Amino acid sequence: MADQERALQALLSRYSVGPKHLVEPAPSEAELALMVQAALRAPDHGELAPWRFKIVRGEARHKMAALFADAARAAGKDDAGAALDAERALKPPLSVAVVARLDLGHPQVPAHEQWAAIGGALAMFLAAAHTLGYGGKMLSGAKVRDPAIAAAFCGPGETLLGWIALGTPARKASGPSRKGGLETVLQRWGE
Amino acid sequence: MADQERALQALLSRYSVGPKHLVEPAPSEAELALMVQAALRAPDHGELAPWRFKIVRGEARHKMAALFADAARAAGKDDAGAALDAERALKPPLSVAVVARLDLGHPQVPAHEQWAAIGGALAMFLAAAHTLGYGGKMLSGAKVRDPAIAAAFCGPGETLLGWIALGTPARKASGPSRKGGLETVLQRWGE
Repeated sequence: MADQERALQALLSRYSVGPKHLVEPAPSEAELALMVQAALRAPDHGELAPWRFKIVRGEARHKMAALFADAARAAGKDDAGAALDAERALKPPLSVAVVARLDLGHPQVPAHEQWAAIGGALAMFLAAAHTLGYGGKMLSGAKVRDPAIAAAFCGPGETLLGWIALGTPARKASGPSRKGGLETVLQRWGE
Repeated sequence: MADQERALQALLSRYSVGPKHLVEPAPSEAELALMVQAALRAPDHGELAPWRFKIVRGEARHKMAALFADAARAAGKDDAGAALDAERALKPPLSVAVVARLDLGHPQVPAHEQWAAIGGALAMFLAAAHTLGYGGKMLSGAKVRDPAIAAAFCGPGETLLGWIALGTPARKASGPSRKGGLETVLQRWGE
């Protein structure tokens, strides 16, 4: 029972930690592998694993920063704005691109169920990061649709969902509670 | 570290348990509330909580069974087929309908991110069930699109994703490993 409570507590205390509050160290390769194994335990109708996680570490962060800066300029931002966007690639010790790889012609599994499977994988990945003492946050925004960025991360038919920023939380916190109550999302049916 | 490993192990050992292998007891109301609190910890861009979980317990299971049987007949199944579908509502000690409630006009959060948030909530809910010793499985299929069933579970603009069958696993198992390897889903970028 005590073990159960600890495991449950890990889920109940997960929260998103943005890039500004992430410091070294980032998860190791072995820890990333565990986090992906947890992701593979998420519900996934048809076991399609319609996602790919792509690690952006070390020098690759600078390559991503250049792409972010170019996209910012293409979107009409000035140099300061481009520098701010580049910083989003450089600030997290590690980023993991989340690429959706949907089978749109699948006879049993509609697209929305495949997106749900991707979200499940993401949630389990971040929950595993949290149990290992790391923090992270999923980031998206308009830049996922920038043609050069999309081409750099996606193959044909793939869609870039965004990037998971990962690292160690600068300070431990339990994270804020979600606004809104259980009574909104948990209801009874048929009574 | 030992606590972390136990919490991680709970994530790495989650598996889906189908209705045939679910027996009493089902989670209590207090346990369901904890499972939904875990669901609220999933990544959710804009904190939209674009989902509702609707508990189908006790007599409501019979009401759902009648809907399932009617839908089977409407789809051209014979009495045996209808009885089989009704059984899907009655076999799990508890079902929880998962209803998507998307904001399709949201300025920042596209529909696919909202589906990912729903999948994240579902994954965290089932992970929490697993830590509490329960088993479950997400079920969908053609019947989620039956007009009478959809109308019974959804309000205007809502979509029925399916039902989570819940109960106690008839026997403990670690669950099969997923086919396919890490090397398929975990890659490096930019090197």
